Amino acid sequence: MKELKDYIRTIPNFPKEGIMFRDVTTVFQDAEGLQLAINSIQESLSNLDFDVIVAPESRGFLFGIPIAYNMKKSFVPVRKKGKLPYETIEESYDLEYGTETLEIHKDSISKGTKVVIIDDLIATGGTIEAIIKLVERLGGEVIKISCLIELPTLKGREKIKDYEISSSVIFDGE
Amino acid sequence: MKELKDYIRTIPNFPKEGIMFRDVTTVFQDAEGLQLAINSIQESLSNLDFDVIVAPESRGFLFGIPIAYNMKKSFVPVRKKGKLPYETIEESYDLEYGTETLEIHKDSISKGTKVVIIDDLIATGGTIEAIIKLVERLGGEVIKISCLIELPTLKGREKIKDYEISSSVIFDGE
Repeated sequence: MKELKDYIRTIPNFPKEGIMFRDVTTVFQDAEGLQLAINSIQESLSNLDFDVIVAPESRGFLFGIPIAYNMKKSFVPVRKKGKLPYETIEESYDLEYGTETLEIHKDSISKGTKVVIIDDLIATGGTIEAIIKLVERLGGEVIKISCLIELPTLKGREKIKDYEISSSVIFDGE
Repeated sequence: MKELKDYIRTIPNFPKEGIMFRDVTTVFQDAEGLQLAINSIQESLSNLDFDVIVAPESRGFLFGIPIAYNMKKSFVPVRKKGKLPYETIEESYDLEYGTETLEIHKDSISKGTKVVIIDDLIATGGTIEAIIKLVERLGGEVIKISCLIELPTLKGREKIKDYEISSSVIFDGE
């Protein structure tokens, strides 16, 4: 029986020399892999009291939206600078390779909103940390963070250690 | 009763002067709007015989993935140049504002695969036309194109008139 991890393709030296890129397109490219991936993140949220799923473009959208649909929650996108058309707030951070600025619509989350953050990957934790800041600046409360893949060697959890985190697949020095 | 169209926010002059941008973040930001949007595209595909949903980043992902999940199909992303990690083919085209190059993984579609293309918007039809070319170059057969919003004044249908097209919401000179 093929497991979720078996659907993930590893591509050496993308986008830069020395990076082992975990490619989730091969998960979605298989109807069975797609079901497994969505279900595994969704199971990590069962019985959880929350209102909104927040996820970053583009790969976070792939996991966040179907789970929002299935659980009848709302969905708020976090996008790269300049992509969201309405009033935004922004956070910049260092990426595994380079720098990034993320934005969220100002009116997308209100005070006391219970938020779950979903992404494909926890690597250095920089993206997730920036999303947490955006959500909290708008008065939202981060209830849980759930990702498909975790790379523990990059120590992402240390950066966001005050939050509940779950991941479905771990690549540990492979 | 609030209709799907009522959830779409119109933002004048984004990303450029003179463009009336149709913002779907307000659809997803409401749990009810999200259900309506996904269901309306999904209904356009009921009883259709197909294998794969192909959708472009980023907003196409928002509609394509939950429907692939619900209908137990596979999902293939089309991304901007340089984003996909494996071997790709590409198509360039003129956009409503600017130029764009899109890529698809070479191994994502095989000969005879029945494809549905999903996106948020049919405007000039340039994005959809480029995706059709990518799919057909890989030997796939485009069965249907389904989008949330159509802007008929931009005459997108003329560019892709040999294909079956459906849209849920029409903004006609508004």
